[in-house]
Amino acid sequence: MTGTIHQYVDADRLRTNIERTAEYGTISDVEGNGRTVLTGTEENKRAREYFVDRLEDAGLDVRVDGVGNIAGRWVPASAERTTPAVATGSHLDSVPEGGIFDGVLGVYGALEAVRALQEADVDLERPIDVVCFTEEEGARFSDGVLGSSVASEQRTVDEARSMADDDGVTLGEALEEIGFSGEGRIDASGWDSWLELHVEQSERLEDAGVPVGIVTSITGTVRCQIEIAGEANHSGCTAMDDRRDALAAASEIVLDVEAATEEAVDEHGETVVGTVGKLDVAPNAINVVPGRVELGVDVRDVESEPMERIVGDIRESLSRIEDERDVVTTFERPYNIEPIAMTDRCLDALRTGAADSEIETLDLHSGAGHDTMHIAKVTDAGMLFAPSRGGISHSPREWTDWDNCAEATQVLAAGLADLAAD
Amino acid sequence: MTGTIHQYVDADRLRTNIERTAEYGTISDVEGNGRTVLTGTEENKRAREYFVDRLEDAGLDVRVDGVGNIAGRWVPASAERTTPAVATGSHLDSVPEGGIFDGVLGVYGALEAVRALQEADVDLERPIDVVCFTEEEGARFSDGVLGSSVASEQRTVDEARSMADDDGVTLGEALEEIGFSGEGRIDASGWDSWLELHVEQSERLEDAGVPVGIVTSITGTVRCQIEIAGEANHSGCTAMDDRRDALAAASEIVLDVEAATEEAVDEHGETVVGTVGKLDVAPNAINVVPGRVELGVDVRDVESEPMERIVGDIRESLSRIEDERDVVTTFERPYNIEPIAMTDRCLDALRTGAADSEIETLDLHSGAGHDTMHIAKVTDAGMLFAPSRGGISHSPREWTDWDNCAEATQVLAAGLADLAAD
Repeated sequence: MTGTIHQYVDADRLRTNIERTAEYGTISDVEGNGRTVLTGTEENKRAREYFVDRLEDAGLDVRVDGVGNIAGRWVPASAERTTPAVATGSHLDSVPEGGIFDGVLGVYGALEAVRALQEADVDLERPIDVVCFTEEEGARFSDGVLGSSVASEQRTVDEARSMADDDGVTLGEALEEIGFSGEGRIDASGWDSWLELHVEQSERLEDAGVPVGIVTSITGTVRCQIEIAGEANHSGCTAMDDRRDALAAASEIVLDVEAATEEAVDEHGETVVGTVGKLDVAPNAINVVPGRVELGVDVRDVESEPMERIVGDIRESLSRIEDERDVVTTFERPYNIEPIAMTDRCLDALRTGAADSEIETLDLHSGAGHDTMHIAKVTDAGMLFAPSRGGISHSPREWTDWDNCAEATQVLAAGLADLAAD
Repeated sequence: MTGTIHQYVDADRLRTNIERTAEYGTISDVEGNGRTVLTGTEENKRAREYFVDRLEDAGLDVRVDGVGNIAGRWVPASAERTTPAVATGSHLDSVPEGGIFDGVLGVYGALEAVRALQEADVDLERPIDVVCFTEEEGARFSDGVLGSSVASEQRTVDEARSMADDDGVTLGEALEEIGFSGEGRIDASGWDSWLELHVEQSERLEDAGVPVGIVTSITGTVRCQIEIAGEANHSGCTAMDDRRDALAAASEIVLDVEAATEEAVDEHGETVVGTVGKLDVAPNAINVVPGRVELGVDVRDVESEPMERIVGDIRESLSRIEDERDVVTTFERPYNIEPIAMTDRCLDALRTGAADSEIETLDLHSGAGHDTMHIAKVTDAGMLFAPSRGGISHSPREWTDWDNCAEATQVLAAGLADLAAD
């Protein structure tokens, strides 16, 4: 039945919606196609309003919940409104100076897929929800995937609404300001299943020459905050033997994180990654021995065990460095997300959809976090990727070819039909 | 003849002048005794005005030059005004949140020494100049020792006056604003000799229980600016093998600087120091592989050869790391100051002064740069240190006991008398 659906995907309409959305928060002074759309800003308001208009144009019933999550429901003639829906979507916010596809492709790919299903006039048993989650990027109020954390009941609406930005403005206030503060909570556990289309953000599809990736699992993430306290002192007057140099100690940690991760890669494969992305030195003056360093470590894998082993290695390094360098270290682990596998039923639907659309796919894992990792905790979930040119994302240089956008949307449409058919 | 001079040093008058100066730019919200007195500010104006008043109270002829250097000349009854003077002094500016002794002790110790000589009524052949140099700390317009660089003709008055702060205000404009923009140039090469009293800024005197240090040489300083360009990328989506991590590369540099310096210490002794005090990561986000790191390296010793060997080792490390990590490095060496030995004649005068005053001294080197390192290029120069409690300086916790301030001033007064006697 899904065999002809891909023909109804309108690549031009999809492109128009992505290009129109790119106009909100557009960046004109850097090379590429950049946009900055933080949650609750004027740009976010306009992107949301454009989206709601498009949902209504397609005849969908729009609901906005208490954290600004938006869902448009389409009830096929052959379906009951009260049957658990198949849901699909992504997000419209961006990182500062982000790209035009990240999130947006998944939102408008979802809408275009529903448009295709409407036009293909297939018999479906289930409604389909087209969804936009609030603050996936975490660039203003949170550390990310905020709206989906509420939809999956990891956080309450009130908890999320009271989260504040650097100026003390809460999410609730910002949503009121832009007219997207709704009622209640869109509840993902009520969905039959969920599919998210997203750009890959790495170059495995490009390297393989394959247009669509089927995500088998989403990486887990552990983040560690480490502080090293030594003693700040005059660089000219403090003999090497008398130093408690926090930066020299931190440099050992950076290299130990790298070494522990490479060891884990040898054993478990290249899904394991470990990064010290953030490092701040105090007082950070050329003529002062560093007294304090803060490091942010990010460890990921599709399995928990290699991550735990790396974290264990890091703690051993800290202990050794305390002894050897007479520094004091603190270790926190504020962010822990378990790796999560996609549901077989959803993987099957996407593979069937790809086969019917005669589009080649590649199985891969997602090294980035996505709203899907929250939704997968409460309902069946799947995810598919479109290629990112050069693997670049979170940058105005992010790019996905329009043909690839359309092909991924074809697979999404056929996959939704498969899930909604029974 | 110098045997009784030390008795005329008035410890209370010295303390009063230091405490009064500490009121300008005082910091009240941190523990200790802090002050912030940047060149050309209102606080600097008031500290300078108080100083000029004290010079005039003591009957000295005050001159201010084109870069705001101040000198008050005392011509003893037994001396000719035109005979080359013995000069002494230091600076009144501070680092942000600095201490109350750094520079100030040397300025008011110099004035108190002249007061003592006036009261002791000794026969001296030479005038004595009490000097305050502009911007020793380099906290606003320069990288430090600015006024003495002009007095020693390392820089012209016009070059110095055109140096600008972060807001584009020039030294010349700032000096006009506070009424300390004078004429011409105080020329250190016209001085017979120079002595500077300063706080030690390390704890060798305290550890040895000796009240006065005689500086035999001032360390040379080489500063290197290193930039490492790798590739910023998503921390979750970039396999370890595909990374060009600028921070991991920088961490190797930090540890290589430390190792190369420790090797030099083994061979040349503990005067050799090497520090990476400044390190900045971009984009510095926990979920991004670092794409660029800038490091500031500071290498010092009392001899040039160990410094050159360390710099050579650093360049070899950069070359190796470029090969191994596929990063691009740049290396600059914007700041080079040769080590400089103090003059025997001045060392002898200070030792004689200490013996006459019955005050124990310790020979040591200065690991910090001082105005004296410029002045020593153009005339005979010597330097003495008072103990810093716990070695702390550039901090509100900087402290030198009042007794130690007075003892060092006694040695200075006797040393000046020795130099001015013939």
